[in-house]
Amino acid sequence: MATPMSGEAKTDRIKVRRIPERGIYDQNVINEILDAGYMCHVGFNVDHGPMVLPTLYGRDGNTLYIHGSPAAGMMRAMRGEIPACVTVMHVDGIVLARSLFHHSMNYRSVVVFGVPEEVVDVSEKMRALEVVTENVVPGRWDDARKPNTSEFTQTIVLKFSLDEASAKVRTGPPGDDEEDYAMDVWAGVLPVTQVTGALEADPRLSDGITIPGYLSDMASGS
Amino acid sequence: MATPMSGEAKTDRIKVRRIPERGIYDQNVINEILDAGYMCHVGFNVDHGPMVLPTLYGRDGNTLYIHGSPAAGMMRAMRGEIPACVTVMHVDGIVLARSLFHHSMNYRSVVVFGVPEEVVDVSEKMRALEVVTENVVPGRWDDARKPNTSEFTQTIVLKFSLDEASAKVRTGPPGDDEEDYAMDVWAGVLPVTQVTGALEADPRLSDGITIPGYLSDMASGS
Repeated sequence: MATPMSGEAKTDRIKVRRIPERGIYDQNVINEILDAGYMCHVGFNVDHGPMVLPTLYGRDGNTLYIHGSPAAGMMRAMRGEIPACVTVMHVDGIVLARSLFHHSMNYRSVVVFGVPEEVVDVSEKMRALEVVTENVVPGRWDDARKPNTSEFTQTIVLKFSLDEASAKVRTGPPGDDEEDYAMDVWAGVLPVTQVTGALEADPRLSDGITIPGYLSDMASGS
Repeated sequence: MATPMSGEAKTDRIKVRRIPERGIYDQNVINEILDAGYMCHVGFNVDHGPMVLPTLYGRDGNTLYIHGSPAAGMMRAMRGEIPACVTVMHVDGIVLARSLFHHSMNYRSVVVFGVPEEVVDVSEKMRALEVVTENVVPGRWDDARKPNTSEFTQTIVLKFSLDEASAKVRTGPPGDDEEDYAMDVWAGVLPVTQVTGALEADPRLSDGITIPGYLSDMASGS
């Protein structure tokens, strides 16, 4: 059963079915998981069935934005306002139980259902591009060259409402069958995380350009 | 255009459409990308449209296996042999161009189309569970307790042929517009990678059980 902290699903179809006690509908938890990442997997239908493609995203309030080229099949398909699914997943660890059956993963995930809408309002579209950029590299928007008219036109922005979103989270040690705890098998968690390395300068970088603070803050080892 | 190294797509629908020069159909490259990970995103249709869920996988030759509970909606839906899509993505870096428009990601991804088939043959099914386990933690299969009859029955294994698979890869520095190279903006790549941490023992781990070599090899900091 859902714990009191986990909230209520706004619609039936977004409810977590498998291991429902891991389902969370609290918007703050959903936002936190979304804001911890920048890469989502978008599912939509093409002629022959479902297609899943990874893409960047950013969140602004109750709205999730993705962007892409009008030449991309994903953007072309979803411009037609078809049902889609956006999934974000952070792997936090490999859960090593004594039995193979109880092996699991620690993770935080969010699933969003919705029909995306193309953002045509110029100021919202520019703001959405800023939101996506700043979600990936905070500070970059004000440093790099902003889109010119041609580039702006060559970019499609789609938005999803977060009204139909649910989170699923697993944390903690393995849960083995009681009789297996006596086994002579090492059990626990192997943590997994995504890290940044040292910044690699473009070979064509002009002399005298130093690394800005917002980038050195993000990079390890530089 | 595809480079001579990239091979030919076996079917038209699996061809990489957007930036086709990044498309690769060489089975060795596809296998290498699949073998470098263990988490995929599976797309399939439910009543109201596409659903995308993350799950573990393993590869054996030209076959990709996933597993799950018969209680899981994903397994229940795909047991019906419906079209599905499996996508694997490794993020390798954030590509920081001088213009926001040319920002990109370095990545390796594979997309597989197919109608999954349930594995019912007992020996293939057991082998598939071993393949998935060993893909996540090499060495674990022979150490932990193997599935008993009840657990084996409570697990569904589905397989996808890799006949319709394509890879897409981006590497290297940003590609800016020629006139932007003179700009006073730092450009390059911020590498991103997934790492393991130090093993966290189950609080209920019995005294005297040491960490096996295959696990210490995988873990950093332990």
